[in-house]
Amino acid sequence: MQNNQDTQKNAIQSLEWRGDHLRILDQTFLPSRTVYSDLRDVGRVWEAIKKLRVRGAPAIGIAASYGFYMGLKDIPDENFSSFWIEVQRIGDYLGSSRPTAINLFWAIDRIKNSIFAIKDRPISEIKDQVLKVAITIHDEDRRVCKQIGLNGQELIPKKANILTHCNTGSLATSEFGTALSMIYHAHSAGKKIHVWVDETRPLLQGARLTAWELTQAEIPMALITDSMAGFVMKQGKVDLIVVGTDRVTANGDMANKIGTYSLAVLANAHNIPFYVAAPLSSFDMTLANGDSIPIEERDNKEILEIAGTKIAPERIQTYNPAFDVTPANLITAFITEKGIVKPDYTNTIKQLFS
Amino acid sequence: MQNNQDTQKNAIQSLEWRGDHLRILDQTFLPSRTVYSDLRDVGRVWEAIKKLRVRGAPAIGIAASYGFYMGLKDIPDENFSSFWIEVQRIGDYLGSSRPTAINLFWAIDRIKNSIFAIKDRPISEIKDQVLKVAITIHDEDRRVCKQIGLNGQELIPKKANILTHCNTGSLATSEFGTALSMIYHAHSAGKKIHVWVDETRPLLQGARLTAWELTQAEIPMALITDSMAGFVMKQGKVDLIVVGTDRVTANGDMANKIGTYSLAVLANAHNIPFYVAAPLSSFDMTLANGDSIPIEERDNKEILEIAGTKIAPERIQTYNPAFDVTPANLITAFITEKGIVKPDYTNTIKQLFS
Repeated sequence: MQNNQDTQKNAIQSLEWRGDHLRILDQTFLPSRTVYSDLRDVGRVWEAIKKLRVRGAPAIGIAASYGFYMGLKDIPDENFSSFWIEVQRIGDYLGSSRPTAINLFWAIDRIKNSIFAIKDRPISEIKDQVLKVAITIHDEDRRVCKQIGLNGQELIPKKANILTHCNTGSLATSEFGTALSMIYHAHSAGKKIHVWVDETRPLLQGARLTAWELTQAEIPMALITDSMAGFVMKQGKVDLIVVGTDRVTANGDMANKIGTYSLAVLANAHNIPFYVAAPLSSFDMTLANGDSIPIEERDNKEILEIAGTKIAPERIQTYNPAFDVTPANLITAFITEKGIVKPDYTNTIKQLFS
Repeated sequence: MQNNQDTQKNAIQSLEWRGDHLRILDQTFLPSRTVYSDLRDVGRVWEAIKKLRVRGAPAIGIAASYGFYMGLKDIPDENFSSFWIEVQRIGDYLGSSRPTAINLFWAIDRIKNSIFAIKDRPISEIKDQVLKVAITIHDEDRRVCKQIGLNGQELIPKKANILTHCNTGSLATSEFGTALSMIYHAHSAGKKIHVWVDETRPLLQGARLTAWELTQAEIPMALITDSMAGFVMKQGKVDLIVVGTDRVTANGDMANKIGTYSLAVLANAHNIPFYVAAPLSSFDMTLANGDSIPIEERDNKEILEIAGTKIAPERIQTYNPAFDVTPANLITAFITEKGIVKPDYTNTIKQLFS
């Protein structure tokens, strides 16, 4: 129990529903400043997702759910058909904020389904229902992250050097995170953990966010550039790798932050276990394999500038895929809230949903 | 001939001896400003190497040679034994500027040997001899780089996507460079070349310098973060990789800019040829293998800041090796001024020096 309380204490709240509005920890100011913003309408939520003030697949889904409620709550209580037109419009609008994140569409669809299921009830009651679903999505994510941490920490030796990429912690979820939840829970269980944090260019989520979270939680870590990960593995200083995911397909291929694929190839070449923390909400059973996952390409400014400072000649060509796809054969196991999933993934992932 | 002239025209002069002083293109201002500095004493040369105003293994050797001359030229012409004490002192001083670069020590030793060889001649004549040796080192490097380019471009198909890391071009040498010399010469020969430029964190030599050089030379390129190289390979968009080297050992292991080892593992996993451009001066036959190459670790500010902007929490732990070691078995061939060297390296490298 003591350990559990410690874990609780260390976790940062990146999202908080405050009765009538959403308070977020604005991640664009981290690590230099800790700025909380109160979002009181759906437009502010859309902007916060688009500009990565809120980021991480689960956190985007939660924020969009509360945004959905705020977008609907002041619509006149006329009839369902005119209300439903607004529901569709707001759903599409929120979906346009960050088109790759599967949790975003999962949350939007869930709210739309919950509305349609009680379409004969008064509009005011439907609105209350939307808020309840948003709070449920938030609560569930908290439980899911905790369970992933508890399930996954079993895979971490008593003394371990763990390498991670991007940010998959409290800042990316409601609490604890996905891959970082494993690390938080292993630390709380008294294991001797040291974390190698990839800085994660171009947007430096590792340097800015993961390094900050782990420092807050007093977990030993060292920051490295992405280009150093292979050499650290070669030196025998990495026992396992844990990452999150933005989408897992039916065969076990998965998309995650750019750089993940290279880490998986390097892990394979060094016989290092490569684990993917994946809530069930990140599985997309409609896609047979990773070839059909859409890869978001972002603005070339992210490559040409760092924190507003130009680092390259102007007007040169760049290539800026935000994600890459790691094939199933390079993944040692997925850690879900329902347990650890190992190959043959085509079968074991199917079992997860049966 | 026309092609050759074009190549000549495109190459940037990063070092120029101007009768009594050394003019350098100060690389710390690139790409935003093109600043030339006149270095008139050995202290300024030492500072320029230390602060990476001059960088790249061959360029460091050349700059140190001219610096050696400027350090000696005003010493009173008394007797050889007092002169020799100064030679030792200045040699050690220059060697302390950048302790990993083998070309630095190679150049210092070559000048010391040339002095000792004529120790019975008047000091003024010895001083003239030092300048001649410095100019010879500079001229030789020009010829070596050109020959590496001519030899290496044979390996480049008529149409090729080439990935490179760090800066190995005109800015790192007297002219043309080593790995980039292959690219310049393939381009001049009319081949359809496209270059993927790794930005090369932490010091961004790819983004700042290689992207700038290739843009000046009008060679098609795209800048990527180091974390994207693996994904670009997976997509079938890389036909070959060319890199430079800071030191090659007798068995064919080699040290180069951090991130090179990861590229070699990724190239191997994707069956992509991995070529290393290596002047004979970068071979260290005194070392049996790469385990004994000293790896320079640099200031953690290079990780925590980019161009003066803080990107991570303060006072956190970092790890900042400037180089890594790639084992011989991952290297397809070395391109030297004496030709292309293929495995079995223990034998073929020995033949290079026999």
